[in-house]
Amino acid sequence: MSELIPLPFGFRAAGIHCGVKKDSAILDLALFVSDRPATSAGVFTTNLVHGAPVKVSRERVRRSTSRAVVINSGNSNACTGDRGITDAKWMTAEVAKCVGCADEDVLVCSTGVIGRFLPREVLGAGIPRVATALEASPDSFLNAARAMMTTDTFAKQSTRTVEIGGRTVRVSGVCKGAAMIAPNMATMLGVILTDATLTPAEADALLRNAVNDSFNCISVEGHMSTSDTVLLLANGAAGSGSLADADRPRIQQAIAEVASELAQAIIRDAEGADHFVTIDVRGGRTRDESFRIAKFVAESPLVKTAIAGADPNWGRIVSAAGYAGVRLEERDISLRVNGIWLYRTGAPVEFDAAAVSASIRNNRDVSIELELTLGVAAVRFWTCDLTTEYVRLNADYTT
Amino acid sequence: MSELIPLPFGFRAAGIHCGVKKDSAILDLALFVSDRPATSAGVFTTNLVHGAPVKVSRERVRRSTSRAVVINSGNSNACTGDRGITDAKWMTAEVAKCVGCADEDVLVCSTGVIGRFLPREVLGAGIPRVATALEASPDSFLNAARAMMTTDTFAKQSTRTVEIGGRTVRVSGVCKGAAMIAPNMATMLGVILTDATLTPAEADALLRNAVNDSFNCISVEGHMSTSDTVLLLANGAAGSGSLADADRPRIQQAIAEVASELAQAIIRDAEGADHFVTIDVRGGRTRDESFRIAKFVAESPLVKTAIAGADPNWGRIVSAAGYAGVRLEERDISLRVNGIWLYRTGAPVEFDAAAVSASIRNNRDVSIELELTLGVAAVRFWTCDLTTEYVRLNADYTT
Repeated sequence: MSELIPLPFGFRAAGIHCGVKKDSAILDLALFVSDRPATSAGVFTTNLVHGAPVKVSRERVRRSTSRAVVINSGNSNACTGDRGITDAKWMTAEVAKCVGCADEDVLVCSTGVIGRFLPREVLGAGIPRVATALEASPDSFLNAARAMMTTDTFAKQSTRTVEIGGRTVRVSGVCKGAAMIAPNMATMLGVILTDATLTPAEADALLRNAVNDSFNCISVEGHMSTSDTVLLLANGAAGSGSLADADRPRIQQAIAEVASELAQAIIRDAEGADHFVTIDVRGGRTRDESFRIAKFVAESPLVKTAIAGADPNWGRIVSAAGYAGVRLEERDISLRVNGIWLYRTGAPVEFDAAAVSASIRNNRDVSIELELTLGVAAVRFWTCDLTTEYVRLNADYTT
Repeated sequence: MSELIPLPFGFRAAGIHCGVKKDSAILDLALFVSDRPATSAGVFTTNLVHGAPVKVSRERVRRSTSRAVVINSGNSNACTGDRGITDAKWMTAEVAKCVGCADEDVLVCSTGVIGRFLPREVLGAGIPRVATALEASPDSFLNAARAMMTTDTFAKQSTRTVEIGGRTVRVSGVCKGAAMIAPNMATMLGVILTDATLTPAEADALLRNAVNDSFNCISVEGHMSTSDTVLLLANGAAGSGSLADADRPRIQQAIAEVASELAQAIIRDAEGADHFVTIDVRGGRTRDESFRIAKFVAESPLVKTAIAGADPNWGRIVSAAGYAGVRLEERDISLRVNGIWLYRTGAPVEFDAAAVSASIRNNRDVSIELELTLGVAAVRFWTCDLTTEYVRLNADYTT
């Protein structure tokens, strides 16, 4: 996942160690800058307890143009009250001075320990340094991705190109996240950059659609973070001009693919996980019905421990579907695991349990397919198993 | 928990090994009989995927009088289609023959492996034997409680007396459950017997109120079983006559206390758990708001692993409150763990983390108190921690 990926035109990035984290070998400050004002859009955590950077960036993204995104890891600036807001704004002001723009043109994210104030002296020295390090190179883009990481074990990047108005438009994204929230680190953050030309309404719609089918379709353990943020900046530097109607599905697809690849990378890197689980629910009356069933199956600790144990336990999966708040009966449900039918139209079928168990044990990827008879709506959702290692990682008293 | 507890007047019980389970030292068939028709009420799983016994007993409890409850462990008769219904009814007919009542006067519960047909030959031989073993003794009541057990490590019983109409009325209950559902065993089942005289409407209201504050306020891992059932039988044998208005709060309290003690016993016996956690949420606008917050905190794997690790991690608790779907802001929340303030009106407070950690590590019981500023509604909820042992137990491939 750490191959080098190009930035779209007109963007520069950098990642450095500034000292929020102790270990000087670990990057902890990322900066993304557009050389010209970029149309911006954002999707934020719906947790009513959320960090100061969420409050500040959510307000600013409404202005619809931005020049920069600054992100520190090691401290989430969450649950820090009014001082947290002041600190987040101060951080953007320091960036604005270096970039030469208005404070309001800078968006901010923070991830890491909750409930501690940002170290101003450290960040005050670091921000001019990260601004000096800005480059349009793939290396600096990768450094920025690395500087966002907390418990992540690899940097997460994705890129696509699409032809629009005779020009090649690029969409490149980075994200971090390995559990929804954790003691000294937290959250998923994503930044997607494109040199396409988008109106604010287009940017907002394209990002929301993409997030719905990607970052909103993953769960490690169902605990919603206080800092989740995905930002889209579109600066028009590719010179492709305004979108024609025919262009919209293609740029939507490019952004959706980048978001989906990034979201899946989070699950591939999920804390303590041994399995990457794709849950397909088909045949719901509405997308929401299929989504609810996928999410309830994904978040059942009994389903997740069964996968950790290579147990083809259809009872846990089917019963989780039964309490998802979707009107159904047993006979509406059929289930395949790794392509093998375990349960059809309301009753278990004969299957080779040892073979299914072996196919789970011997493959990192697991497929759960729930086929319903209620309608035609389908959703794909990604999750991981629940292992003793996850418990060990999250039970370690580290404060 | 396994002290001897009296049956109310006019009830007999028995528990035997009949062979649903392999090990002949383990009881697997329980029978409770009222010598006269008893007013009955039931509360059942809301999972739309549920076992045949739930379907049969739910239908019969509407008739409002019953003579007997038969329960087998080792096989849940769930996800067994039409044959499961036929089998459940057959089982009640066998009991009816022995007891001398109509089939419809017999309620049935089954708990254990999902998706296998009931072994009729084994149960057909066992039912006359358990009927012969019926006694009004505390020993036979304890045997019945033991015969319901699956992964439980101890039998769960509770009793209260209350004076009504110059007579002593007794309420005695038994239950089983150690996780909401599991591969070869499942579910919580409860049977509460009283020699009070209750109308069907009274029995239904008293049971529902009691269950709301007890069995509906516990969670091991949030996976709703296909077989959960709590039954109340009231046979009037105490001779206390119809309830006067003044009696109602007292019999309600007795039934509520029995239900609460039984529900807490399930959490005390929760699979792999090291801690018994009481969550008090006070100051919600409505009971439902306080309940939602308690349930979301109780079911967050990150909260549960923090407790396993003796980590006074207020961020995980407060952020779980933030995504419970209750309208609130950070400043509406204050939090105490084991009596020590960690977070007040939206900000962390200084506390001795090592001391709080030690108090969690050194005590099986943990208290989480969330104080809100929204209203006056309070809820008490019980849960357990999430340990590597829980994962190990539930990841073991046992089919």
